[in-house]
Amino acid sequence: MKAIPEMMRAAVLRSVGDLVVERRPTPRPGPRQVLVQVTAVGTCGSDVHYYEHGRIGEYVVTEPLVLGHEAAGVVVACGDEATRHEIGQRVSLEPGVPCARCTQCRRGHYNLCPDVRFFGTPPIDGAFQEYVVLDETFAHPVPATVSDEAAALLEPLSVGVWACRRARVAPGERILVTGAGPVGLLAAQAAKSLGATDILVTDIKPARLSVAEELGLSTLDTGRVSLLDAGVEADVLLECSGVPRVSGAGIRCICPGGRAVLIGMGADEIPLPLDRIQRREIEVTGTFRYANTWPAAIGLAASGAVALDRLVTHRFGLTQVERALTVGRTDEKAIKAVVLPQE
Amino acid sequence: MKAIPEMMRAAVLRSVGDLVVERRPTPRPGPRQVLVQVTAVGTCGSDVHYYEHGRIGEYVVTEPLVLGHEAAGVVVACGDEATRHEIGQRVSLEPGVPCARCTQCRRGHYNLCPDVRFFGTPPIDGAFQEYVVLDETFAHPVPATVSDEAAALLEPLSVGVWACRRARVAPGERILVTGAGPVGLLAAQAAKSLGATDILVTDIKPARLSVAEELGLSTLDTGRVSLLDAGVEADVLLECSGVPRVSGAGIRCICPGGRAVLIGMGADEIPLPLDRIQRREIEVTGTFRYANTWPAAIGLAASGAVALDRLVTHRFGLTQVERALTVGRTDEKAIKAVVLPQE
Amino acid sequence: MKAIPEMMRAAVLRSVGDLVVERRPTPRPGPRQVLVQVTAVGTCGSDVHYYEHGRIGEYVVTEPLVLGHEAAGVVVACGDEATRHEIGQRVSLEPGVPCARCTQCRRGHYNLCPDVRFFGTPPIDGAFQEYVVLDETFAHPVPATVSDEAAALLEPLSVGVWACRRARVAPGERILVTGAGPVGLLAAQAAKSLGATDILVTDIKPARLSVAEELGLSTLDTGRVSLLDAGVEADVLLECSGVPRVSGAGIRCICPGGRAVLIGMGADEIPLPLDRIQRREIEVTGTFRYANTWPAAIGLAASGAVALDRLVTHRFGLTQVERALTVGRTDEKAIKAVVLPQE
Amino acid sequence: MKAIPEMMRAAVLRSVGDLVVERRPTPRPGPRQVLVQVTAVGTCGSDVHYYEHGRIGEYVVTEPLVLGHEAAGVVVACGDEATRHEIGQRVSLEPGVPCARCTQCRRGHYNLCPDVRFFGTPPIDGAFQEYVVLDETFAHPVPATVSDEAAALLEPLSVGVWACRRARVAPGERILVTGAGPVGLLAAQAAKSLGATDILVTDIKPARLSVAEELGLSTLDTGRVSLLDAGVEADVLLECSGVPRVSGAGIRCICPGGRAVLIGMGADEIPLPLDRIQRREIEVTGTFRYANTWPAAIGLAASGAVALDRLVTHRFGLTQVERALTVGRTDEKAIKAVVLPQE
Repeated sequence: MKAIPEMMRAAVLRSVGDLVVERRPTPRPGPRQVLVQVTAVGTCGSDVHYYEHGRIGEYVVTEPLVLGHEAAGVVVACGDEATRHEIGQRVSLEPGVPCARCTQCRRGHYNLCPDVRFFGTPPIDGAFQEYVVLDETFAHPVPATVSDEAAALLEPLSVGVWACRRARVAPGERILVTGAGPVGLLAAQAAKSLGATDILVTDIKPARLSVAEELGLSTLDTGRVSLLDAGVEADVLLECSGVPRVSGAGIRCICPGGRAVLIGMGADEIPLPLDRIQRREIEVTGTFRYANTWPAAIGLAASGAVALDRLVTHRFGLTQVERALTVGRTDEKAIKAVVLPQE
Repeated sequence: MKAIPEMMRAAVLRSVGDLVVERRPTPRPGPRQVLVQVTAVGTCGSDVHYYEHGRIGEYVVTEPLVLGHEAAGVVVACGDEATRHEIGQRVSLEPGVPCARCTQCRRGHYNLCPDVRFFGTPPIDGAFQEYVVLDETFAHPVPATVSDEAAALLEPLSVGVWACRRARVAPGERILVTGAGPVGLLAAQAAKSLGATDILVTDIKPARLSVAEELGLSTLDTGRVSLLDAGVEADVLLECSGVPRVSGAGIRCICPGGRAVLIGMGADEIPLPLDRIQRREIEVTGTFRYANTWPAAIGLAASGAVALDRLVTHRFGLTQVERALTVGRTDEKAIKAVVLPQE
Repeated sequence: MKAIPEMMRAAVLRSVGDLVVERRPTPRPGPRQVLVQVTAVGTCGSDVHYYEHGRIGEYVVTEPLVLGHEAAGVVVACGDEATRHEIGQRVSLEPGVPCARCTQCRRGHYNLCPDVRFFGTPPIDGAFQEYVVLDETFAHPVPATVSDEAAALLEPLSVGVWACRRARVAPGERILVTGAGPVGLLAAQAAKSLGATDILVTDIKPARLSVAEELGLSTLDTGRVSLLDAGVEADVLLECSGVPRVSGAGIRCICPGGRAVLIGMGADEIPLPLDRIQRREIEVTGTFRYANTWPAAIGLAASGAVALDRLVTHRFGLTQVERALTVGRTDEKAIKAVVLPQE
Repeated sequence: MKAIPEMMRAAVLRSVGDLVVERRPTPRPGPRQVLVQVTAVGTCGSDVHYYEHGRIGEYVVTEPLVLGHEAAGVVVACGDEATRHEIGQRVSLEPGVPCARCTQCRRGHYNLCPDVRFFGTPPIDGAFQEYVVLDETFAHPVPATVSDEAAALLEPLSVGVWACRRARVAPGERILVTGAGPVGLLAAQAAKSLGATDILVTDIKPARLSVAEELGLSTLDTGRVSLLDAGVEADVLLECSGVPRVSGAGIRCICPGGRAVLIGMGADEIPLPLDRIQRREIEVTGTFRYANTWPAAIGLAASGAVALDRLVTHRFGLTQVERALTVGRTDEKAIKAVVLPQE
């Protein structure tokens, strides 16, 4: 085990479009925290949005901020009261630590905690740096069969697992996944691992659809044929595009008693077809992050039920975070770019 | 027991705005049906809509139609294989008989049966007549403590019970009921009977709000103060107004983890605030009639947990069905008009 | 507001049958705790069991212990970071503070936390003393309409609410409550407040059954007629007697699709009629305390849906705790004895 | 398509241990029934029990009876009102047709219908014959990728799917399956297909355990090491052995918040460890057949998520039904014997 250095490198967003590597003191774990040497961090659309716009809704970057919340690493030090890890344990990081005391936390809905501290969301620093500290109970051990990059991608897989859970995906059901980005591909695989046997993934980008097909999923290029023209009928819609028109069309494909989970973000409002919602008693909800998903996500990754490594299309070092955040704009084959802070 | 006459009177909608009493043959029960002498029938907004417009959505009145689906009566004859009733049994009629064979029926979601035969919905005749036949298992016996009129109103109470069930109303929760018509007043009472202790009913008609107050419910006159200005926060929204603007405002009052059930009909689309739905993980759904609600509704009526008789503001004979359907337009104190076919 | 004294009185169990009032330092609240002047404490069968036997299962009294976990009081001081109460706020105390970090806590099942610190359970002192400290979020404010004694009895009411929740009690269902002690009477009332309209309470003590009748519940004296002879059929069994024979008979009264919740403690094993469990698909479970019940319990008490004060049959001062614990042995009319530490 | 003969062969149980092939008139489908030429029928422990004992509980064979309820075939004729199948459609038969009218049916719990007519259960004939008639909606079409024998085994797979559903098996959970007979092997595979990633199958017969291992399941030979000595901990127990001692030991392996589903039959009573049930809030229930499982079972079989053909170890013609029923007694490698009535 290498000695832990006093100072480390961190990729810091100083203002819109201005992201530089700085030297900062290596953080020290609190009593029940662990210090984690970061091995891999996925880039997410929200990282890109902060980089390009400096804000997401009411969250505004006013101070220098380290982005990155899809992270894996190795425990290199434990706080005085942290007892759950051995030094050297490989971990996947659940990036939001809730207050554990409010009504939502107490009910098990800790993703709705108003006081959650979430990586890479102002004013909390994220994981585009060499080391991070985290409450020990949110640093989830992963087996050797799960790679560092896959361990990082357990975060977006958790988004998919949570969406399936909220949709009550059941075996034999027909699942429509609109949007074949990383979350769509992971939500579709999560649904498949839950026994859904008839899964259709739609997108307008052929490169993404071919990845879906590689993963054994059926696809529809909605740039060529609309959902309604294709006569799609589904028990569950997992909406991952964030495009209001797609949400509306997707909801119209849901059969009586079906469910829609709106995962894709961006729109203020979507039009809800009231008559359908009533006559078919369709349930519509959204997701906000996830709760209690890591055990399931680890199990699905370790068993091979969900393919994570295949989604990684680009890798960058800590000095290349800007490229990691922008490669999706230029390379249509990009699915998931990963930052490897130790390289 | 009086002899059953060969012919009976029926109030028949012949075309828009043209409703006359005709003599028709008294129906005969099929093998598993009962013949019911109708004692009371509530009037519903959908009856009014058919009377005024001749259609609701895809349901179009093309042949003469008897309206009325909130009905009670007395069993006066039983089919050859009908074994569940004694002659003279007072019953509340569940007005929709599903196919019992399709996927929805088999799952217990018989309200979503595509082949349901529902009173007063083209082409099925309803209960504004002296006698009706019905499958014996949909003629629910009521105890002596439930009046004929209350037995008829178990139908709209079922709408409220079903809405509460779909909303998963729980004790101690805060319930916002928008719209103080019959369904709103019954949904609010149903929520109260399920242990909800903080129920707010809103409307813009003071006469309706004062009935709500009589029933022990809190009220807000949203003609004077808007929901948002009043700072309302609720766990559950039971939307009974059918006004899109009210739905939108109501959904914005729902706390994280809350549920909205859209009961009021009429709009094609309502605007769904996606950010709220996601950040608060609010669940939105609609209701279409009800399933398996009569036992609960009978229990709540018989125990006095829900007041039904208080809602009846007007009574008419079979020759006055048109007045029963239009009194709500002219008398602002009207809540529920009931037709008494035997008078 | 009186000054908080340096020393206070506490009723301390020193060994089996040896309970004396001692002077102890008044505790000081930790950062997120409040100091509560105790106004009323109910006595529970488990307090009696510790007093008489010095242990319950694996929990053994090895050091002097203050019993009492059904408590209410007034906040008289707040820790440095405790922000939820004003001085003088009347509160009902939820007596178990979980770790908030383990898997069970994180899922909302905090009653199953292996590290919970629970009043009056070795080695944690309870509330038979003048003052206690408690995490602020477990000191639940109560409205003025809820008396001190009722506020104390929100704890056993929570047991009943939790049992109903686990039994999924629904309106219109038939509930069989075996055992008319305080928990049985509260579970029965909780079921009623949830819309159950057909509730039967059984016991072999006529004095208890007459209290049940006063509360508007139906009763059966199973000392005279057995459950099976009476032909009882129920959707839900709430077993509060702890007698294996009664559990077995109660389960045989459950209809297909019904549920049994075993609340009464004491037996090592009960015989489970496998054929019934299978052919009727009956669900059987137990309860261990409660989670997230106080908001519901407060609502039910404040609305008058559940009567709490009526259950208090005896009152004692802090010097009379032994009498409070033993009065149930001598007075057959005893339902709930309450200790008032300030008298 | 061959002409349908007037007479067919049927294997008839005339009395205990007396099973002969008789010629009987080929049945004719009722209006909403189909006539199915039977291609494969699995043998089940209940068939063996009727053959050896003439009864199961209250079901007594008093008239000659055709056994067999795990059946597949081809639709060869349709009743006048049967519209769901083309002639030649391969189907899997759901062997119990409920009344569709009672409370249980109406709630979707049609497996609990007291008037169900179930193949091979007195007095209803089963499928050990060349042709059977069945309500069209219970003859489920299967795709070409599912073999006749696999289509027959959708029935025991349904038992496993139903058990998993009642156990609320979730991804990432640890499942303990006690008993590696056909139902255990199918329940274990069903759990796996639902995302459970840590499944342990126990038995005392090494031959059965090696089949489990072939199917990718972990195993424990409880003839060598007891569950408790092995330190097994599970979220869910699927008890398929029917041995009370095994049920008891299995329940003691369940973690807090876990569930036990008792599938194996035979015992009158099992001892329920009350303290565990309460302190861990374990839920215990049984299964009786299944409801609404065929769509899921077909999906799992067609996708290859569950292996069915591998379980067939023996095949017999209609004249060899007695050997099919007894081979399990003599060949320790027997898992599932199938009768092929057309051979």
